[in-house]
Amino acid sequence: MTDLATLLHASRRAARVLAVAGTEPRKAAILAIADAIDASVDAIVAANAEDLERGRGTLADGLLDRLALDATRVAALAAAARELADLPDPVGEVTRTRTLENGLELTEVRVPFGVVGAIYEARPNVTVDLACIALGSGNAIVLRGGSAAEQTNAVLVETMQRAIASVGLPAESVQTIDRFGRAGATELMRARGLVDLLVPRGSASLIETVVRESQVPVIETGAGVVHAFVDAAADLEQAIPLLLNAKTQRTSVCNSLETVLVHRAIADEAVPVVVDAMRAAGVTVHADGDVEGAAPLGPEGWATEHLSMDVAVRVVDDLDAAIDHIERFGTHHTDVILTEDAAAAERFLAEVDSAVVMVNASTRFTDGGQFGFGAEVGISTQKAHARGPMGLPELTSTKWLVRGTGQVRA
Amino acid sequence: MTDLATLLHASRRAARVLAVAGTEPRKAAILAIADAIDASVDAIVAANAEDLERGRGTLADGLLDRLALDATRVAALAAAARELADLPDPVGEVTRTRTLENGLELTEVRVPFGVVGAIYEARPNVTVDLACIALGSGNAIVLRGGSAAEQTNAVLVETMQRAIASVGLPAESVQTIDRFGRAGATELMRARGLVDLLVPRGSASLIETVVRESQVPVIETGAGVVHAFVDAAADLEQAIPLLLNAKTQRTSVCNSLETVLVHRAIADEAVPVVVDAMRAAGVTVHADGDVEGAAPLGPEGWATEHLSMDVAVRVVDDLDAAIDHIERFGTHHTDVILTEDAAAAERFLAEVDSAVVMVNASTRFTDGGQFGFGAEVGISTQKAHARGPMGLPELTSTKWLVRGTGQVRA
Repeated sequence: MTDLATLLHASRRAARVLAVAGTEPRKAAILAIADAIDASVDAIVAANAEDLERGRGTLADGLLDRLALDATRVAALAAAARELADLPDPVGEVTRTRTLENGLELTEVRVPFGVVGAIYEARPNVTVDLACIALGSGNAIVLRGGSAAEQTNAVLVETMQRAIASVGLPAESVQTIDRFGRAGATELMRARGLVDLLVPRGSASLIETVVRESQVPVIETGAGVVHAFVDAAADLEQAIPLLLNAKTQRTSVCNSLETVLVHRAIADEAVPVVVDAMRAAGVTVHADGDVEGAAPLGPEGWATEHLSMDVAVRVVDDLDAAIDHIERFGTHHTDVILTEDAAAAERFLAEVDSAVVMVNASTRFTDGGQFGFGAEVGISTQKAHARGPMGLPELTSTKWLVRGTGQVRA
Repeated sequence: MTDLATLLHASRRAARVLAVAGTEPRKAAILAIADAIDASVDAIVAANAEDLERGRGTLADGLLDRLALDATRVAALAAAARELADLPDPVGEVTRTRTLENGLELTEVRVPFGVVGAIYEARPNVTVDLACIALGSGNAIVLRGGSAAEQTNAVLVETMQRAIASVGLPAESVQTIDRFGRAGATELMRARGLVDLLVPRGSASLIETVVRESQVPVIETGAGVVHAFVDAAADLEQAIPLLLNAKTQRTSVCNSLETVLVHRAIADEAVPVVVDAMRAAGVTVHADGDVEGAAPLGPEGWATEHLSMDVAVRVVDDLDAAIDHIERFGTHHTDVILTEDAAAAERFLAEVDSAVVMVNASTRFTDGGQFGFGAEVGISTQKAHARGPMGLPELTSTKWLVRGTGQVRA
């Protein structure tokens, strides 16, 4: 057996303990983690300083920012953990019941997955979020946090393991495989039977690799080419601040706005207002003929995810054309219609095939924290298992309990 | 674009129509399929005779039996379709709601996947079951039914397409890619973005290939190394007919019994009774020291899935040892405890990590039809998305609808 397989078997044993531990010990473990992180702030920040020092010059500024942990951010990690411990426990929730004619009683209940794997990059906050979500949903977790954050993650995992052991649960409930390097990530993706679910978080290329290579079921947390459709019946006074919020409140995230579609019926009035507001906010407007003085479209045309102070603007003939555009160029993440026309709103909600479809709201609300999930595992852009922000229930499976009195099949 | 990609794009267009078609047209399509199959019985049986003729001498008897369709079996296909049309429509069902403090109204609703792919072998009944389940859940389906059943499937698909078109829905809602051969199956597994879910049904090697190669999310419908644990508090008079039913009612299926575990406290009494009853029913008993005159274990020891009139018998020290055996050698499909001890029953239900865990019932009840699902897509042995028998709701995803009045994120 490889060293990594030995580690994964320890995760499976921990998972069996967690699955039947009940709610209180798991909540106690999360609270102990919060306290331990608060108490270890100096060691965490010091380890992070080493990672940052190593990363300077090789990592992009955005990555360095995601990598950095100061005392304030460490305190926020502990606070998020305490919030998670306050949420309802999904484990044991009855999801369906039925009684068959022969008297068999069927009960479908939520159960933990068992062992969940996560592959991510340079985001030590994810290390704590995922560990606490896993404990909150009764799962053991195996973390591959990448070399850029290796020192920080090592201290965080060690801190969490001590906290978990202090309440009598297995320290192996949370493990890191960073020391196994890339070969470890590959072995994790092939560990069918030992790992029940794999969640990649990070760059498009990382997610692509995991989806292509994994033999373990994967939840794809994908890119967001997010659209807002300014309908003929839009209230422009409401629409402009909403579009600016969706585009500029934080540009580097998947739920930020990338494309504004404008209904031709109001294009003469609306396009200049939208474009002027965007430009005044420092946003570069890209277009393909509809906007005077616009920059050309991004490298992938209408399918470009800018993740920056750039937005594409297009005039479309009507609601159908808007839906067609979104179906063709979108990533099925989040799309919004701005309208006072209830019928148009309901058609948009029904026909746009995205994880989150909105009416008159900022796309920045597609977020586990905003949805009240405490933290999030990620935002699923696939349709199997979970769709949209993933919290505690999304890290559970189900099983059927069948209670009989000797029934046999005829 | 390849010819297959063109076909898959037609499936996507059909899926968009189905997603908003509403319940009635889809139920009408299923009923039209039932009528068309009844009306085409001669053509179906004739095509099947050609497949059978071709298969004789190359296919095993079990496969030939699964491949065969006579008038009775064709009528049963139509009847199953009518039963499916009677079930509640999962599409549009509200699964969660919440109102955020800022007034945003969140509604999670069931939606179709879109395009579902299926790869299976020599089972033309699956062609009709899957097509009708797909229509019942609002999905377009792409079928790869394998060369052994190619003539039968061609007639079935053509019959179903005419029926679907007759009620005004797209004929491309159901398509076969058999004419593309193995290369078509490979392309289907790589069609991420065009196909939303892939379900393999068939031999272990087929499922293994799909799990390993697919980049589309897969539901693994796996093997069943199914256990019955005869507890110290078992009622043997109830247990024996139940064990015989689980083992012999149909041996070639995944929910049939493979291993009987007997609690040591009653082994002296129970083992001879179980063994004698099995032998009297024509079952060969395999064991590793616990049973006089027993045959050796199968090729994979305790992990052998016989799918035949063979059963393994083992004495275990107690409930914990039984659970450990099942965890180590089982496939997490279906396992049952036979006991009158309620505490033992509840521990078994809680701690055995299988799709279906039973008390005092035949494992043969793990079946979509028996569970009241009308028909089944298959029995999922993985934990992501669906677990156990898969019916209409299991072929749906969800999406979040967010209704606002101009909310922006602070």
